[in-house]
Parts: sequence; C-alpha cells; structure tokens
Amino acid sequence: MGNSSGTNERSTHLPQAADPSRPVPESGSKARGGGTDAVSIITGKRDGGELSDAQIDWVVDAFTRGIVADEQMSALAMAIVWRGMTRRETARWTAAMIGSGSRMDFTDLPRPTVDKHSTGGVGDKITLPLAPLVAACGAAVPQLSGRGLGHTGGTLDKLESIPGWRADVTVPRMREILADPAIGAVICAAGADLAPADKRLYALRDVTGTVESIPLIASSIMSKKIAEGTAALVLDVKVGSGAFLKTLDGARELATAMVELGRDAGVNTVALLTAMDTPLGRTAGNALEVAESVEVLAGGGPADVVELTLTLAREMVAQAGLTVDPADVLADGRAMDHWRAMIQAQGGDPDAALPVARHTEIVRAESSGVLTRLDAMGVGVAAWRLGAGRARQGQSVQAGAGIEMHAKPGDSVVAGQALLTLHTDTPDAFGGALAALAGAVTIESAPDGKPGGLVLGRVG
Amino acid sequence: MGNSSGTNERSTHLPQAADPSRPVPESGSKARGGGTDAVSIITGKRDGGELSDAQIDWVVDAFTRGIVADEQMSALAMAIVWRGMTRRETARWTAAMIGSGSRMDFTDLPRPTVDKHSTGGVGDKITLPLAPLVAACGAAVPQLSGRGLGHTGGTLDKLESIPGWRADVTVPRMREILADPAIGAVICAAGADLAPADKRLYALRDVTGTVESIPLIASSIMSKKIAEGTAALVLDVKVGSGAFLKTLDGARELATAMVELGRDAGVNTVALLTAMDTPLGRTAGNALEVAESVEVLAGGGPADVVELTLTLAREMVAQAGLTVDPADVLADGRAMDHWRAMIQAQGGDPDAALPVARHTEIVRAESSGVLTRLDAMGVGVAAWRLGAGRARQGQSVQAGAGIEMHAKPGDSVVAGQALLTLHTDTPDAFGGALAALAGAVTIESAPDGKPGGLVLGRVG
Repeated sequence: MGNSSGTNERSTHLPQAADPSRPVPESGSKARGGGTDAVSIITGKRDGGELSDAQIDWVVDAFTRGIVADEQMSALAMAIVWRGMTRRETARWTAAMIGSGSRMDFTDLPRPTVDKHSTGGVGDKITLPLAPLVAACGAAVPQLSGRGLGHTGGTLDKLESIPGWRADVTVPRMREILADPAIGAVICAAGADLAPADKRLYALRDVTGTVESIPLIASSIMSKKIAEGTAALVLDVKVGSGAFLKTLDGARELATAMVELGRDAGVNTVALLTAMDTPLGRTAGNALEVAESVEVLAGGGPADVVELTLTLAREMVAQAGLTVDPADVLADGRAMDHWRAMIQAQGGDPDAALPVARHTEIVRAESSGVLTRLDAMGVGVAAWRLGAGRARQGQSVQAGAGIEMHAKPGDSVVAGQALLTLHTDTPDAFGGALAALAGAVTIESAPDGKPGGLVLGRVG
Repeated sequence: MGNSSGTNERSTHLPQAADPSRPVPESGSKARGGGTDAVSIITGKRDGGELSDAQIDWVVDAFTRGIVADEQMSALAMAIVWRGMTRRETARWTAAMIGSGSRMDFTDLPRPTVDKHSTGGVGDKITLPLAPLVAACGAAVPQLSGRGLGHTGGTLDKLESIPGWRADVTVPRMREILADPAIGAVICAAGADLAPADKRLYALRDVTGTVESIPLIASSIMSKKIAEGTAALVLDVKVGSGAFLKTLDGARELATAMVELGRDAGVNTVALLTAMDTPLGRTAGNALEVAESVEVLAGGGPADVVELTLTLAREMVAQAGLTVDPADVLADGRAMDHWRAMIQAQGGDPDAALPVARHTEIVRAESSGVLTRLDAMGVGVAAWRLGAGRARQGQSVQAGAGIEMHAKPGDSVVAGQALLTLHTDTPDAFGGALAALAGAVTIESAPDGKPGGLVLGRVG
C-alpha cells in the first residue's frame, strides 16, 4: 500500500511480554484494575473488586477538591450499595473522610471524654437528659449533633426551641465548656471543617438513592464521631418500624461495622441495639420533647425514656472509667444542674416558657381494649407533616409542632378516650398527619402478649 | 404537659386503613414504590423492581430537561447495570430516548431503506464499501454514523481523511442523496435532534463506569437507528478480544435485545455475530482503512473484508426485498461508481491522494513459523496511541496514523520479516504503541489448528 512509504522509517522488535495472554495495558482515563482514576475505581467496585488504600485516598480527596464529579461519586456510591466494602476498605474510607478536614483533640482535658450517637428514631430525645447526666457523673461530653430529616427529629432542632439557645459554638468555647466542672457537656453543630467530604457525600447520597449501605452509613457516622475527638463512644442503634434498619440482623451488622471502625481508630466503642417500633416516651416534636426531657431530669418522665437514659449513661460512665452510679446523679438533681448550666452556656434560658403550637387536634380511641401497637413510623411521619420535621436540608421546622401520646403499647384504653394530641401552627397539615397515622394504632380486646424490652442486644 | 393546651382544639377519629399493616404513605421526594420522582425511581430499580412506563417516560424527559440531575441519572444507570431491565422496560426506555428528539421518515422515498450498524471492532471499515454497494443494489442507505473512541475507530473519522469530505449533511440534502439513483447512500453525523437524551446519557455513562449494560447499550444503539428512519437494519455484533463483548453468549444476548427492540419499533432487524479476535483486513487507522476499502470496491482487498462486506450486503439486500446479487454489483464496478458519487455528494474528492503519516516503524517477526494470533485489542490500542483514535470525545485524530498488518493469523512467517508497520505523525507515540503490542503476536512452529470462521451466529 502507498501509505507504507513514510519517511523516518525505523525498525524494531516487540518488547517481551511476561505472559502473552495478559491483558494489554490501556492508557488514559479508561485504564482498568488498580488505577487511581475515577472510571477505573468505579468499574473496579462495580465488578466486585476491593479498592486499594491508594484508590480510596485518591477518590475521596479528588471528590473533595471537585476533580471527581458528583455524577462519578454517585455511580461509585451505587456500586458500593451493590458490592459493599470490606472492613479494611470501610476503615480507610472513614479515615479519608476524616482526613478531608481536621480532627479535634480533647486529650488535654482534665476529664475523660465520652459521647453517644443514636442512628435516629421517633421521639428519641435521649441525648437531652443524657449529656448533662454523664457530665454530672464526671465525664466531658463533646457532642456534635445534627438536624432532623424526614420522620426522625434532630437534637439541634429540639434544643433550638429553647429561647436564646444557639447551636454554633467555636472550638475554643467548646473546650472551655467541656473543661468547666459545672457544665462538662456541649451539644452543638459540627463546623464546616469536620469531615467535609462526608457532608458533600451525604447530600449526594440523599438525592441519588444511595443512603442504604452499611459501610457508607457506618463510615459517615463514625467519621464525624472520630473527628470530634471523643475518646470513647456509645452507639444506640435503633431497630424496628420507626428506624431505617427494620431487622435485628441489619442493626447488628451496622453496629458491628461501627464498633470496628471506632476501635480501628482508637476510640473505645460499644453499641446497644434498641427497639424502635413505637416512639420513645410520650412526645414527638421539638419543644414537646424538650419539656419531656426536663421532666426526666426533674426525676419524673416516661419510664422508657428514663430506662434508656440510665442504660446509656451507665455504658458511657463505664467507658469513661468512672464508677459513679448515674441513677444517683439523676435522683439528687445534679444532672438537672448540669442541664441548666449547659443550656445557659449556649445562650439559652432554661426557665423560659417553651413555644406552643397554635392548633391542636385530638385523636380518640375507636374501641376499648389494650393498645398493642402505636407505630413509630406512622407517628414520626405525622409529626414531620405537622411541621416538626423537614423534607430537605435547610428547611425550617416548627418549634411547637408534634404529637403527644396519651397511651403507649400495653396501656388499657376505652373507646372515645384521647389517644394522641396533634400540634401544629399550620392546620392544613392535620389531613396529611392523620393519613400518616391511618393503620398506625392497633387496639385489641384480648392481646396475646406484652410489649417487648427496650434493649435488644449489645455489640462490643 | 403544658403544651397540650393549644387553641382551636379539634377532635377526630383516625381514617380507616384498608390494611393496618400496610406501609405508611410518605410524602415529598422520598416517596417509594411507583412514584415518578428521581429518588423513588432510583431506589425502585436499585431494589430490583421493574420501572413503570410512566416512571421511564418521566425520568428520561426530566433528565433531558435538566430536572433529573446528572448525579441522579448516573446512580440510576449503575442500578440498571446491577439489576438490568426487562424487554418491556428496555423498549419503553428506547422509545423515550427517541421521543426526546424527532424521528426521521424516509417512507416516501422511491426505494427501500436499509442500514447496518456494527458494535465496533478493530480495522472494521466495512461500512465504507458496504453502503455504496447496497445502494448500487437498489436500496437507500441512510447511515448516521459516529466517531471513534478508545481502541475502535469511527466511520466518520475514516471518511474525514478524504480531502474535502464533510460529515455534516442537512436532512433535506440527505433525502436528495438517498433519492438519487446514482448515489443512494449517505454516511453522515447525526443531528443534534436525534435522540438527544441518548447523547447526554452516553456521555454520562462514559465517565461513570456505567457503559457495560446490555439494556443500556441496546437502547442507545437502537434509539439512534430507529430515529434515523430506516425500514430495515442489519446489526454486526462483534465478539472477541477486540470487541467490548468478549463472549458469544454476551454477544447473543445483546443481539437478541437489539433485534427485539427493532422489531418492537417496526424496524425489520437481524443481527450477525462476527469474530473480532484479530483485526479485520490488513489496516487499522483512518486513511489506511479508506485505502483498503477502495481496494475492495476495485475488486481486490483482503479476503475477510470482502467476505464480511458481501455477507452483510446479502442480508441487507434481502431485508430490503431486493433480489440482486451484491457480488455481481461489486465485481462489475457499480459499487465503486456509487462510492465515488457518495464521496463527491459530501464534498470529497475520490481521486485525491490520502494523507500519509510522517513517521513509520516496522515490527519484525521474532521467529519463524505460523502466525497464530494477532490480538485485535493490542492492535487497536496501539493504533489509538499512534494517533488514529481518541481517549475523549472532541479530541482530534491523525488521518495518517495507524497500523498496516503484513501477515494475518494462518500466514507463515520467517524470523525478521516485517509483521506490522506503525504509522504516526508523533514519533513519541511509538513507545506506547509497542507496549500495547507486547504479547499481542503469537508465532508457533507447530500450530494446533486453523483460524476460525468470521460469522459465528445469526439472530432474527
């Protein structure tokens, strides 16, 4: 052919290949296998492979810096939902998330640090009485907390219903509060520098159907908890209709992954698996839950909230190496003293009246018998629709909105008695809330058994 | 509790739920099940569900209009890679891709329309002699073609090495060319209005590791072919080391999916499965392949290129309801006449000298024996690295770059004879090309068998 008569002709033999059947190396962005580029990392995971440390470090860093695009990270997240990650991959992923920002260090404090994290439930206000209780026991509790999304409430949303209380605390002020023996607990929003890659990834997962992955959930939670600098951690992994994990097996898998991540990162971690088929306590909603928490700190409150608060406090106190009994500290008012100091330290007035919703509607029992079921998801969605929660990050919530429960599973009820009081500032919301509650209540004349226990298991 | 004393108190019973165990309906963007919002469509497919017609129509339209974000579509694409799509879903997906633009209509032409599509191989220049050959047999060939990416070349890139030839043809001019009995074939770029959703989706899949999905590949190819308005279609599905499908089973699955899609859309479709373990013909590269195609049209050329051209032409002629034998039309020069007219109709000079690369390097046989293997992927990647191909859409290619093969599997060779001539304008590329060829050539002194046949199967 005429084309072969080019100038500058050279002649050569082929380089020897070690194995003539080996795949031809490719160049550019399509290289496969262990390459540190977005497409080979995505296809490697897609095809069931294990990502190397270098690949994980590169992809998280490149995502943080905008080199790996959102559409690439979401495809990788879906591949991880599909294929999972090993313990090593998950630990490295978590370390990369932490490394995208800075890790706080409270090792110089005069008291041991310990924190608690809940995976989210309906009516789960436990952090509110728990943090000051454990601080009153002698530990420092550096809790970086979040806002609610969907049917579960957020601790910061609840505290913000207290007039004057602010979620933003600087790191130096956080350190002062933790060092103060009269306070010792801070519940505040995470700064922008705490695992920023996780913040971006979580927002992406939320809109791309890639939330439901044990390694991604575990690394998201644990990257923030490890970065906040606590030396010990107690996890409350919720399981049941109102939790995102519906089965004990799933909850145990997540708990195990998180305990491993904590220990691999030097944070002494244990997890309790607790029931979330029915709401905790008798309230779901921001100001309503603050009021109930204050009742617990005053020595009253619903039995399940008191039980779970004390159970978690005992775990935390033990993790912190302290020997005091939290029940004594709750009973003698020291926990309440720390609550008041903690609220005041963040600008709140512990004596101010809490906001009250402008409209209420009472739901009454259809029949007499024993209330055998009050579904947590139904109550959570109803409270959300009443204005206590938000559908998207950044939306505001109503402080007074929510649901009071006048009966809990196991209670006898008579036809026509008040079961629930719905609270909202926006009465148009009652219809949607009632629709969410349809089928959420079961009253039986001759029930088979009694409600199950609250603590279903322990990992660690 | 104090909070229950709200104003405007109302009282109600719960609406009756048909089934107290049914899931609570959710509102907002997180609604699950059959919802037409991005997250429920993604999670529905992720969890192994089948998408409804309404969901497919909505998501493709919303993606086209920018309502469904790239990161959501890429997560959905990965979920489709994972879970697949049924025949109904794939047909609807394809229809939605077509519906994102306009479908051309050539039913008023005086001659039957028929087209061919190849899934891409190394040295696959068959379209170049085939289109004018089939036009010379009496059919109209409206071929909307593409550019190369990675190791496989593109028909438009090849034709653009002909001085003056232009890939852009307006629809009215396309119709004129097809109606002209002296031409009858047009090979041009697709307009922006041809399945625009597929263009956007393909670009996204390319960077998110979601190319490898039979339903997505089938719908991408067929949406363009159906939209181009051909009444009949012959598919050349490549299988082997140089094709993206490595196994006959995979190729048959894709072929079946495409034949079904064509027939469901009223396009008479058949598919041949053809071998792509070694390059087609003796050239891989743009101008090199044009020269080889002209040899075929002149009655010469490599046996495998002639065989596959005639095999595909016979299928197309039969699909078009014609009875002429393409071998006669090739032999008597009518196919060449149509080639020249086709090139001229798009501004090209069929008599102009083709571009020649400035540098060449000859690869010589290491030993004597029979060449038993000349790996298509190795040759394809080497030609790409020499400048004949591109790593990303939009990059330019070298007209003269590529590889001449002086021996093909089954040929006897002696040590030191020229096996390959590499062509490039950028001699720095020789090293990468030679690395890609390492292990691509096998010479045996006592081979076990002979090369297999070209046509491996037929679907339809």
